[in-house]
Amino acid sequence: VVGLAEPEASLAGAAASTGPTARHRIVIVGAGFGGLTTAKALARADADIVLIDRRNHHLFQPLLYQVATAGLAPTQIASPIRTILRHQANTRVVLGEVEGVDVAGKAVLGQGRRVPYDTLVIATGATHAYFGHDEWAAAAPGLKTLEDAVSIRRRVLSAFEAAEIAEDPAERRRLLTFVIVGAGPTGVEMAGAIAELGRRALKADFRAIRGEKARVVLVEAGPRALAAFAPELSDYTRRALERLGVEVKLNAAVTAIDDGGVQLGEERLESRTLVWAAGVRASPAAAWLGCEADRAGRVVVEPDLTVPGHPEIFVIGDTAHVRQEDGSPVPGLAPAANQEGAYVASLILHRLRGAPYRAGPFSYNGVGILATIGRAAGVVQLDSIRFNGLLGWLFWSIVHIFFLIGFRNRFTVSLDWMISYLTFERGARLITGTVGPPD
Amino acid sequence: VVGLAEPEASLAGAAASTGPTARHRIVIVGAGFGGLTTAKALARADADIVLIDRRNHHLFQPLLYQVATAGLAPTQIASPIRTILRHQANTRVVLGEVEGVDVAGKAVLGQGRRVPYDTLVIATGATHAYFGHDEWAAAAPGLKTLEDAVSIRRRVLSAFEAAEIAEDPAERRRLLTFVIVGAGPTGVEMAGAIAELGRRALKADFRAIRGEKARVVLVEAGPRALAAFAPELSDYTRRALERLGVEVKLNAAVTAIDDGGVQLGEERLESRTLVWAAGVRASPAAAWLGCEADRAGRVVVEPDLTVPGHPEIFVIGDTAHVRQEDGSPVPGLAPAANQEGAYVASLILHRLRGAPYRAGPFSYNGVGILATIGRAAGVVQLDSIRFNGLLGWLFWSIVHIFFLIGFRNRFTVSLDWMISYLTFERGARLITGTVGPPD
Repeated sequence: VVGLAEPEASLAGAAASTGPTARHRIVIVGAGFGGLTTAKALARADADIVLIDRRNHHLFQPLLYQVATAGLAPTQIASPIRTILRHQANTRVVLGEVEGVDVAGKAVLGQGRRVPYDTLVIATGATHAYFGHDEWAAAAPGLKTLEDAVSIRRRVLSAFEAAEIAEDPAERRRLLTFVIVGAGPTGVEMAGAIAELGRRALKADFRAIRGEKARVVLVEAGPRALAAFAPELSDYTRRALERLGVEVKLNAAVTAIDDGGVQLGEERLESRTLVWAAGVRASPAAAWLGCEADRAGRVVVEPDLTVPGHPEIFVIGDTAHVRQEDGSPVPGLAPAANQEGAYVASLILHRLRGAPYRAGPFSYNGVGILATIGRAAGVVQLDSIRFNGLLGWLFWSIVHIFFLIGFRNRFTVSLDWMISYLTFERGARLITGTVGPPD
Repeated sequence: VVGLAEPEASLAGAAASTGPTARHRIVIVGAGFGGLTTAKALARADADIVLIDRRNHHLFQPLLYQVATAGLAPTQIASPIRTILRHQANTRVVLGEVEGVDVAGKAVLGQGRRVPYDTLVIATGATHAYFGHDEWAAAAPGLKTLEDAVSIRRRVLSAFEAAEIAEDPAERRRLLTFVIVGAGPTGVEMAGAIAELGRRALKADFRAIRGEKARVVLVEAGPRALAAFAPELSDYTRRALERLGVEVKLNAAVTAIDDGGVQLGEERLESRTLVWAAGVRASPAAAWLGCEADRAGRVVVEPDLTVPGHPEIFVIGDTAHVRQEDGSPVPGLAPAANQEGAYVASLILHRLRGAPYRAGPFSYNGVGILATIGRAAGVVQLDSIRFNGLLGWLFWSIVHIFFLIGFRNRFTVSLDWMISYLTFERGARLITGTVGPPD
């Protein structure tokens, strides 16, 4: 059975092999963008670092939708954490599930074990939220883990298979209707990719449903798609989606979901395949720490990212609610988590050296936002520079390749995208796990 | 819900769109090597062909062990069946589970539906067999599907993770001990790959268990490894395995298995990770047809591969027991299934043309056998030509790339093998699904 982490005794033992046992102990929980950046930036710290994650891999979440839509394989967007940190001698990677924190006793708790810390960094991310309707999760799964992605891939591909042999025309329409809730980047990217997949598959691979069209509906409660972008990019996104055959329903709030469809007030969309991309909720770090959380469950931290009253505990990434000096919130983006990780690591390094150092408050250096709608259609907003179309898509592709971890992944993803662009084929159209739709 | 296949009405409807409805109906069950070859060889047949499989993908089983040992991703060794047969207008691909055959009424049955046939080809393969000890399956899973492979990958990788944080030295040894039962090609390939994985991972990626060695034990009831090969190749295989650090136990019959280890008569091997590669059992086609089966459950067919008394039903591949004129059995190999598929298709084509044709009995044109032990170590036996070592390994690699289906798979697998060879890294070290060993 996998325990959470080593007990004090074996931690001391491990430390003994690399240095004196009295070294400062830093525990980082979570190896997403924030946690991994923190760990890497502490590579030369005179400290014993333990990085705990419940997965053995770092996941490049921005490309998760491509696994869900059969464009990429899970292995291409994930890397084993311990391989990434292989050469970092002061760091141990531990596979385990954290269940709480003993704030007074300075130890992380889980699976009956304690991992003591001098400094704690919590970077446990967020999961999808159903705004009090957790019963919708079964019919409309969200997309946060590789398992989620493979499960959505199975549902989407199985729906086409089931439509091919469905006798009842109404059921066939339900099977060929895909509803994505939420028009943020994930929702937009999912809708575009499913539309492209359906168009290609129905044209080439099926017989009975060859003449039909997949109906892809993107539902958004707010007034525009990609609300974080400039209005003209939102407009472009809507038009680009519509060119792909996606119906974009704005100002449409979901009032009910079941496994036969979704209710938007009076209107009902009959569908066997729903995807939830509408909301996130932070991991339960606030409950572990017994401190204040915002409505999304995020820990409200000080300007230096510490927990109020606990300068030894940092919370970063999607788990932290950070207000900057100008009052604007730090967005839940990978670059923000990375910058927070780097900031926290630098603060810890200064403390370890005992250097006279007063941290300025964290401020996010917004590098820009970008999203893709489909083949040769992307939107990019870098401060005042904005562009879209083929150029936006190329820029999006290059940026994502660049930030993907691992030479092999960068190389094979580039290659797969090139092949897909040239052949219109998606390389990962496997139905695995339970056969058949809604599982 | 995915139904088995189209009902008669919709089959007639589908046929109407491609030709007259009175066309000969050929149903092929199973899209492994045998079934897929049959379907492809019937591409120009004046018939309506339905190919039924319970998976949406054709699986290249000879490389399945590489998925189980984190060398390749599932998507690299599997292709969607309907994409493979996309351009074959006379063939429909149906995702569904067959549960029986109405031999008198000439229809395949499953999930409450009937698929009528004039000619039936059964190519449903085999699964692993525990010789009456099905209770061993939970502790010692076999390797036949992608799900099996991902599950074994999870167990193997999780065992290293659990060993890294285990406090009890005895438990750590159990976690670092891997037992593979059966020294056929799959068992040999698994043992070699796990030994290489363990050697590399323990040297580079772990901390607490860095100084330790993974113990890999290959257990075989018979007197040699790769018994189908010439004795000198068996000897080479044993030596090559031992060079990799694998303990090869010959003449060692398993008498009991539990989740803490395996019993070989008086001797006990303590291990948390067992893999079963010792026996296969045919799919239940004999029960569907109500005909004679051999001890491995295979249908005993006529020399022309038809079921006795039913010239319209063929059974091929691992589901068929075929004796050739010289009395020797046809081996359960991919080339044999392919040749049987081609033979059956040609026989059906002649019958369809009403040509005066009397089939000679099927005879297997043995092309040779080959297996790999690990990096730069393979064995090849082509009739009287035998070689091993680096040359055997290169030959093995080229043959497997050549027979892999799909340009993209050939290309990415070649590439991944090249990168692995140069870097010693395995590219697919993901633990997905339930976290933690034995699930």
